[in-house]
Amino acid sequence: MNGMMMQSQLTLTAIMRHALSNSPNSEIVSVTAENPQHRYNYKQAFDRTAQLAHALTRLGANNGDRIGTLAWNDHRHFELYYATSCSGLVCHTINPRLFPEQIHFIIEHAEDRWLFIDPMFVPLVEALANKLTHVEGIIVLADRAHMPESKLPHYFCYEELIAEESSHFQWPELGENTAAALCYTSGTTGNPKGVLYSHRAMTLHTYGVLMPDAFAIRHDEAILPVVPMFHVNAWSIPYAAPAVGAKLVLPGPKMGCGDTLSKLMRQESVTIAAGVPTVWLALLKYLRDSDETIPSLNRVVVGGSACPWSIMEEFEQKHGVYTHHAWGMTEMSPLGTYNTQVDPTIPTEEAKQLRLKQGRAGFGVEMRILDPQGSPLSHNGKAFGALQVRGPWICERYYKAEESALSADGWFDTGDVATIDHLGYLTITDRTKDVIKSGGEWISSIELENFAMTLDGVAEAAVIGVAHEKWSERPLLVIVPEASANLESGKILSAFLGQFAKWWIPDDCVIIDELPHTATGKISKKNLRHQFAEHLWSQEVIV
Amino acid sequence: MNGMMMQSQLTLTAIMRHALSNSPNSEIVSVTAENPQHRYNYKQAFDRTAQLAHALTRLGANNGDRIGTLAWNDHRHFELYYATSCSGLVCHTINPRLFPEQIHFIIEHAEDRWLFIDPMFVPLVEALANKLTHVEGIIVLADRAHMPESKLPHYFCYEELIAEESSHFQWPELGENTAAALCYTSGTTGNPKGVLYSHRAMTLHTYGVLMPDAFAIRHDEAILPVVPMFHVNAWSIPYAAPAVGAKLVLPGPKMGCGDTLSKLMRQESVTIAAGVPTVWLALLKYLRDSDETIPSLNRVVVGGSACPWSIMEEFEQKHGVYTHHAWGMTEMSPLGTYNTQVDPTIPTEEAKQLRLKQGRAGFGVEMRILDPQGSPLSHNGKAFGALQVRGPWICERYYKAEESALSADGWFDTGDVATIDHLGYLTITDRTKDVIKSGGEWISSIELENFAMTLDGVAEAAVIGVAHEKWSERPLLVIVPEASANLESGKILSAFLGQFAKWWIPDDCVIIDELPHTATGKISKKNLRHQFAEHLWSQEVIV
Repeated sequence: MNGMMMQSQLTLTAIMRHALSNSPNSEIVSVTAENPQHRYNYKQAFDRTAQLAHALTRLGANNGDRIGTLAWNDHRHFELYYATSCSGLVCHTINPRLFPEQIHFIIEHAEDRWLFIDPMFVPLVEALANKLTHVEGIIVLADRAHMPESKLPHYFCYEELIAEESSHFQWPELGENTAAALCYTSGTTGNPKGVLYSHRAMTLHTYGVLMPDAFAIRHDEAILPVVPMFHVNAWSIPYAAPAVGAKLVLPGPKMGCGDTLSKLMRQESVTIAAGVPTVWLALLKYLRDSDETIPSLNRVVVGGSACPWSIMEEFEQKHGVYTHHAWGMTEMSPLGTYNTQVDPTIPTEEAKQLRLKQGRAGFGVEMRILDPQGSPLSHNGKAFGALQVRGPWICERYYKAEESALSADGWFDTGDVATIDHLGYLTITDRTKDVIKSGGEWISSIELENFAMTLDGVAEAAVIGVAHEKWSERPLLVIVPEASANLESGKILSAFLGQFAKWWIPDDCVIIDELPHTATGKISKKNLRHQFAEHLWSQEVIV
Repeated sequence: MNGMMMQSQLTLTAIMRHALSNSPNSEIVSVTAENPQHRYNYKQAFDRTAQLAHALTRLGANNGDRIGTLAWNDHRHFELYYATSCSGLVCHTINPRLFPEQIHFIIEHAEDRWLFIDPMFVPLVEALANKLTHVEGIIVLADRAHMPESKLPHYFCYEELIAEESSHFQWPELGENTAAALCYTSGTTGNPKGVLYSHRAMTLHTYGVLMPDAFAIRHDEAILPVVPMFHVNAWSIPYAAPAVGAKLVLPGPKMGCGDTLSKLMRQESVTIAAGVPTVWLALLKYLRDSDETIPSLNRVVVGGSACPWSIMEEFEQKHGVYTHHAWGMTEMSPLGTYNTQVDPTIPTEEAKQLRLKQGRAGFGVEMRILDPQGSPLSHNGKAFGALQVRGPWICERYYKAEESALSADGWFDTGDVATIDHLGYLTITDRTKDVIKSGGEWISSIELENFAMTLDGVAEAAVIGVAHEKWSERPLLVIVPEASANLESGKILSAFLGQFAKWWIPDDCVIIDELPHTATGKISKKNLRHQFAEHLWSQEVIV
């Protein structure tokens, strides 16, 4: 028997309507290419959104068409989010930091019909234009005065495109499973893969982001997403802010600029900001150098990669700002876990250890960890296994993929290896592909590396799995010594004795001058594995 | 085109699973018939819930069967909530304060197969037992030692019923539209009507309740619902607390007992509590008399009827507790609006006026007000009209009703008349049936009454609409004078001149000794209208 409640659809259109009735005067403040501080309110934003929806209709955009964006965080990108999704189109945000070949692949794969781009990306698009087989026109997010010269065909000015349109649009009644947005994973291996978000997933994720143990944004707050709007919908902040009526402060292309961030935060009384560790390093450096502080700022959310303790400490001690670890991925919309404020009665060191974890899943995300045989492991904070997730804002299938991305029993494998403790605190310990699979058990490369780094004379350390006839893989330790150090493999390995189970200890240690690194400065385990694929074991397995 | 996200179902089962993974140790503390302080945690609670689900299966309960409860707020009632809903049954909570005839009607209409009742309700059920045609057995929520003697057939002890069952149950994978709970409106006119809540509605409502501008319950809080679990699922608190892992404190039958409430709050460090104004009057009186205070208590939520300013003032000034007005109804699960903490920069008097309003709708509830012709009115805080609502946790159709409860365009009429201001603040001004419909326009009875009450010598005042040939209805003012007062109709009416539009002013004033009242002490406008149905107008209509 079914309940007898309204079948109201969970759509982003409902968020727009809610902001229009409850918070028409709340502001959106943006840095744009042409204006260091554009300011208007939700009423004005959604009036222009309606104008844009008319313009898209006039261009001939049809149900489900992908509309590409190459743009930073500003009010026009905000208008694009809603004008596309709420009129039944798909807002396809493209990461301009990718290699041009990847951008080309993504636009072609998505079959974007139009591209809306910031003026600074005109050269990038010009270079690709010949190879874009679906794109029918380029719209530059600027007024006439700020349009770059270009010979691109079908080249339009955003402000002119929408100027004559009506600010009333009859938004369609969309089913909640309608596609709303598309974002490609950066794809360290293989081609990027598209995650096609539905209105339902985005709406539920917005509730998830807003939960009191997560972002907990109140109507009278101001939030600054330093995470780009081309990256997983800026963690849903452009949906969450109007859903509660908070002020939205958008830094345009000034993401890594401590000066601009500090100025925006102080002028707009920002209370909460979200971004990756790098932007916080830039902001903290600026604040140190300028001796400024941001009295309104209450908390920052850190995701993308693990947040060093030094950032948390400096924010708290010098600025009274609490730092929250969050973890997620493109396939999770992205919010997986959030490290909410710890109970103040917890002793300092214990609290620190808790805060360094990735946090806990809020209601809406379920997590499990599996051993190499696929059996669920206990949530005791020690057992580590392949992290799988499920919930209404998690990807079921990649865009255009023929097969489900899920396990037979309906879970999504994150590609991470993790522990979960009895209160649900998640700690990511490794990537599944970097874990060493030895005799049907797993050995964490990161734990071994962390120990190796504590040894005298070790500058860099990496542990990789190398094929082994009997054990499938065995760990190989690769060391780069400090300049003057004189290291010996045998001595290094014997330091591991007593610190780890015997079968965890690397079978061999190789000392080399340099490790291969990725473009972002991380050790490239992939290249390292390739380099040592034919490694001949110099000693017997200890087990 | 649809998105490609997981179709995870929104069910109460997911809340149970979430609490089991993330907050197994969070406590539920209850006052029960036999125990002034029963204490266990979510793990233990859901273990027993599984036992109860087995027992219900053994009794022969089938998909969609209604299981009636007549019980106060305690851990066994909590177990019933989840064991029924999560196994595909319907948890039908019955208000024991209704007249026995109404209780009989409700049990028969719902076709409850079993009743789970507190020991104190055994006599009530005994009196009805002969007339219950669907009930197959009575289970008393007690252990053997506390079972009242009874000759009821099929009379069981709860603790014995579940004792031998396994604490593992294979919960079914329910669709989110499956019926989860049933609650009847008290029904001031006609028979009570049942609202059949779905898992989806309850889950989304839980997110709504938890929003940062609403209850905003964090994992490290303790919440005390003084609103009964037989009344609209205790405002969803039994779902919201485990969804975040908060401690749940349940006062059993001690709802109106200031002593018990104060003791529970202090012992369990309660941070938030919710209830109707009456319970807060009782608590504040107890605190005054005992000179106690509740340091942990941070805020109280007040619903059910408008909260007098004196309660808000005393809570805030003497106890540092913020009082939040909330408004809703059984048909709304119940949360409609919530009056969140006002911006501290708003001047005192303005803040007071805001706080006395019913609050704002959170994302998930849409509101509109219509004029007598059915056209939407502006949200300017002045125009008042019939309040209609829509959203995913609002009733579409009453249980067993053949017709939708909605307007042709899909809105639910609340039966209230209200204003909404430009920020979405709602003020209920009247009941639709009490508004005077004069010449196609509406006159608020409450505004006229409030003015009449300010006149010297007036003890009580009521304004009702009385049939009028030309204007359909015209307002009649009925006055009860203070003991020694010597009032004249003409003088009273002339006091209205200049205070209201001319056509609002009552056409006549009748002075009588006593007004009819309802059982709860309110003026019975229904009886008053009946009494004056044949009223002959003594003066011409002014318009």
